[in-house]
Amino acid sequence: MKSHTKHLTFNVPARMGFVNITREIEREVADSGVREGLVLVNAMHITASVFINDDEPGLHEDYKRWLEWLAPFDPSPEKYHHNRTGEDNGDAHHKRQIMGREVVVAVTAGRLDFGPWEQIFYGEFDGRRPKRVLVKIIGE
Amino acid sequence: MKSHTKHLTFNVPARMGFVNITREIEREVADSGVREGLVLVNAMHITASVFINDDEPGLHEDYKRWLEWLAPFDPSPEKYHHNRTGEDNGDAHHKRQIMGREVVVAVTAGRLDFGPWEQIFYGEFDGRRPKRVLVKIIGE
Amino acid sequence: MKSHTKHLTFNVPARMGFVNITREIEREVADSGVREGLVLVNAMHITASVFINDDEPGLHEDYKRWLEWLAPFDPSPEKYHHNRTGEDNGDAHHKRQIMGREVVVAVTAGRLDFGPWEQIFYGEFDGRRPKRVLVKIIGE
Repeated sequence: MKSHTKHLTFNVPARMGFVNITREIEREVADSGVREGLVLVNAMHITASVFINDDEPGLHEDYKRWLEWLAPFDPSPEKYHHNRTGEDNGDAHHKRQIMGREVVVAVTAGRLDFGPWEQIFYGEFDGRRPKRVLVKIIGE
Repeated sequence: MKSHTKHLTFNVPARMGFVNITREIEREVADSGVREGLVLVNAMHITASVFINDDEPGLHEDYKRWLEWLAPFDPSPEKYHHNRTGEDNGDAHHKRQIMGREVVVAVTAGRLDFGPWEQIFYGEFDGRRPKRVLVKIIGE
Repeated sequence: MKSHTKHLTFNVPARMGFVNITREIEREVADSGVREGLVLVNAMHITASVFINDDEPGLHEDYKRWLEWLAPFDPSPEKYHHNRTGEDNGDAHHKRQIMGREVVVAVTAGRLDFGPWEQIFYGEFDGRRPKRVLVKIIGE
């Protein structure tokens, strides 16, 4: 069994934003030499997500409005008790649960085994600082 | 290490619907010859889900009403900017995020290592056409 | 390839609650002897979750209020058709979809490959009885 580990760093210049990281993950799959296996891609921070959906700017606007409805930004400790700690990112911990922490993708014949529109995104909900994504590939 | 890959196709005759695919996944596990390992099952389309829950029709009605509250169908480009592309499925991209893209299940002694009520479902949110599910099994 | 399987049991004394199970999972990784691989941790019951987030009591209060807004407890069969079966846990099946069934975590150099704040939680939405969590580790 082969394994390959990589930590990628992203610095999103806004509080919320989505970055297409498919090319970076494809590169790691190629570097790993794995032909048949699984790749795990996960946010290493708990106010960020990795998810798979469409690379379409209108949809990303929709996601931002929808997540703001589901868990509005509010730095007050009344809305989010988490903000009693002095942080202001209670909302981000909720948004990340909707969008998910991780994806697991099949590697077949040395490539991501993807449907026609699948793209991997890093989702940031408390940005403006460097944060990490883990890529772990196992297989043969 | 063994690996086994299968693409299954489903054509749900409604916009939204849930299909129990547990038997199909069990068959792939048997075909794979894997005794100890992991199976990944994921929707290959970004307006569909694979999830694990109860095979109970009342619950599935509840899920449909709840998802319609969380992300109502609305073909207008005002509600979903995604629909500016000419598509009408903005809602489906949101519903899929709630229900998830994939499940990873343990294979133990050659079988899905499941609790008493766990069943695997394909969740369709923009149906009436053939769409694919990937099954990838690795182990020994 | 090595594999290691463990079923853990938790009995949460309230309807809803979160239990930090990171130490238990670390122990299983150590017992497995796996240095490079993946660990799957999933709820085996369909009214419970396994998720990764912050071990901060204010956040857990926030999650409880938020999940109650998204899917309120209501034993009546009007609110949840699932409760026509005689059960009263329709809400719990919804809360579990928001928080997720499972996490997959990388094992690197024999340890959980975690960011600074990542902790693994068992999330209970229909407690006061013993329920199980599966830990499956594969790798080398």
